Amino acid sequence: MTDAPQTVPDLPAGEPVPAVPAPASGVAAAPLDLRADLTTLTRALCDIPSVSGDETPLADAIEATLGAFEHLEVLRDGDAVVARTRLGRASRVVVAGHIDTVPVADNLPARLVGEGAHAELWGRGTVDMKGGVAVQLALAAALTEPTRDVTWVFYDHEEVEASLNGLGRIAREHPEWLEADFAVLCEPTAGGLEGGCNGTMRAEVTLTGVAAHSARAWAGVNAIHAAAEVLRRLAAYEPRSVDVDGLVYRESLNAVLVGGGTAANVIPDRCVVTVNYRFAPSRSVDEAFAHVRELLDGYEVVLTDAAAGARPGLDDPTAAAFADAVLAVTGGAPAPKYGWTDVARFSSLGIPAVNFGPGDPMLAHKDDERCPVWQLQSCYDALRSWLTA
Amino acid sequence: MTDAPQTVPDLPAGEPVPAVPAPASGVAAAPLDLRADLTTLTRALCDIPSVSGDETPLADAIEATLGAFEHLEVLRDGDAVVARTRLGRASRVVVAGHIDTVPVADNLPARLVGEGAHAELWGRGTVDMKGGVAVQLALAAALTEPTRDVTWVFYDHEEVEASLNGLGRIAREHPEWLEADFAVLCEPTAGGLEGGCNGTMRAEVTLTGVAAHSARAWAGVNAIHAAAEVLRRLAAYEPRSVDVDGLVYRESLNAVLVGGGTAANVIPDRCVVTVNYRFAPSRSVDEAFAHVRELLDGYEVVLTDAAAGARPGLDDPTAAAFADAVLAVTGGAPAPKYGWTDVARFSSLGIPAVNFGPGDPMLAHKDDERCPVWQLQSCYDALRSWLTA
Repeated sequence: MTDAPQTVPDLPAGEPVPAVPAPASGVAAAPLDLRADLTTLTRALCDIPSVSGDETPLADAIEATLGAFEHLEVLRDGDAVVARTRLGRASRVVVAGHIDTVPVADNLPARLVGEGAHAELWGRGTVDMKGGVAVQLALAAALTEPTRDVTWVFYDHEEVEASLNGLGRIAREHPEWLEADFAVLCEPTAGGLEGGCNGTMRAEVTLTGVAAHSARAWAGVNAIHAAAEVLRRLAAYEPRSVDVDGLVYRESLNAVLVGGGTAANVIPDRCVVTVNYRFAPSRSVDEAFAHVRELLDGYEVVLTDAAAGARPGLDDPTAAAFADAVLAVTGGAPAPKYGWTDVARFSSLGIPAVNFGPGDPMLAHKDDERCPVWQLQSCYDALRSWLTA
Repeated sequence: MTDAPQTVPDLPAGEPVPAVPAPASGVAAAPLDLRADLTTLTRALCDIPSVSGDETPLADAIEATLGAFEHLEVLRDGDAVVARTRLGRASRVVVAGHIDTVPVADNLPARLVGEGAHAELWGRGTVDMKGGVAVQLALAAALTEPTRDVTWVFYDHEEVEASLNGLGRIAREHPEWLEADFAVLCEPTAGGLEGGCNGTMRAEVTLTGVAAHSARAWAGVNAIHAAAEVLRRLAAYEPRSVDVDGLVYRESLNAVLVGGGTAANVIPDRCVVTVNYRFAPSRSVDEAFAHVRELLDGYEVVLTDAAAGARPGLDDPTAAAFADAVLAVTGGAPAPKYGWTDVARFSSLGIPAVNFGPGDPMLAHKDDERCPVWQLQSCYDALRSWLTA
């Protein structure tokens, strides 16, 4: 927070200025300044580095900040913070985002580049996804009486192995915290609405041979040569584009890793091709694996990792209402999400979910990660419109 | 030496028993017992471990042993020992062998298994190549008046990178030590005569692409898929068999290593296939590389390592005399050497050279490395016959 600007810019138009929250008793962290504009707030969030595993200072700050608002019940599990209204509305929605980032690449503190419509905030986390977290925080504070009860979820460990994922942990240990009719995940979508997500799986294709000294190659059987046909099939493969609930999901199936051989004078007896299949959410993991096995018929294929996709669910009435409200502000049309995101966790809980957040996902994790300022405001406005209609 | 048997078996029939040598003054190493039979001597040599880089104790013992014989001039360079007669014969020949081994695999001390015609000596170095060194040492001591002057060479660092090779070092720093009309390298040939050797080269084929997140694979270009055609050509390649000076050299061309990709969620932008081409000695390195480039036309191929082969040279009169003398004892016919050996160093010095030694080369470096005892005797008898005729 020490690097954060101390100016007090305007809040989004039409919102009451929340009282500056005092630190909640017993919580040492300095609260975030929610009187700041979205750019300044995003910048402040980025400047509390929170690489996966080191989210505590930021989680403390979020807990301290939201704990000061009487309209919110604040819950904590590890470095995940949940804040929810309890207005007894007919419908409850979750708005969720992760607070961790991939490692900083000498791109902090965040900096503002350009002006007006061209202004961009540069730095680790601006896209993935502290811009979205800023929108969540500002709305959580501002919307004292939303038309739907809202559960604001800020969670840890999204950028690392799935078993550590904070949202998954809450689903296991406090499933009641996630009860809702609909969920919005503020992952970057460049301010557009992206429904569901493709599934993803990894499989290993192992070719075996017989080792021999390469001076007498004919005494061996070359396992790397055996990979030629596997790679040929993958290279020739034509991935599908699949319409699911009105959105077209583009699939892909690729060799992502290959390794074989032990030494430059030995005929290799083993070669492993790792395949990554991104499959439309209309296909189950079992169906997807069967498809890979069919393509690579005759070879030893072992499934090593898989996560089902999520259907866009835009045929759900709450989702449709969300889409209508959001698109009225942002324009455009719903699109499919290609990357696997935690919407699939909501989907597996039976909760329709969509991705909607500021920042171009193609810039996530890049050294030149940067988010247009207008997308922060656009997402804020769209969500606010939905939650106040 | 402490593990070596203390019995005093027969020397090969017909040889005078050399005096037990006393340690040469100033050399602390205990000399080897050259009164022992070949099996015992081989075993004693094996039981002085001499993994590449740790040859000093064995080199010291060889220097001390041969230094006691007045008919030999003993020279030393690093851990290489050279002992030579100076009888003014019309012809001089080199008989060479390396004294280092690959790492011990819990297969020392050496042990004798079986009896009579089935007796085998098991353990690291029995094949590659302390059996051959034992034959050299026994003959160096016994042949006080060979019909050709003999330069006995015992050298270090053969099993590691070529730049460390002791024979290469002598060729650079004391080329006069290697002056000869013909050379015999006592590398394992299972007691047969193997002429020349294939050349060998390594080349890297690099495929490039464009990295992208695998969730949007179409934004990238897959470098591993691009390797399919390279591997297809290698798998389909039909290697030649080439007659060189009457021996048929079998070639081979193989992918020996492959590596590509950076992570399971990234479209790989680089894949490297390492190729090993073993080529007949009638082909130069340049010609061999041109052949590989032709096969892999259209791809980026970089030569990373190469060593020319050696023609068998059996048309040389001294070589022909050697072959006649040896085959009269061993039977059989000359065969080509497939593995690259230091005969190629002699070849590059203009000295015809052949491989001739005890032990099956297919068992070299194996945990179950073992040498038939009869081959020790057969090689001894054949070389003795040649050098006393």
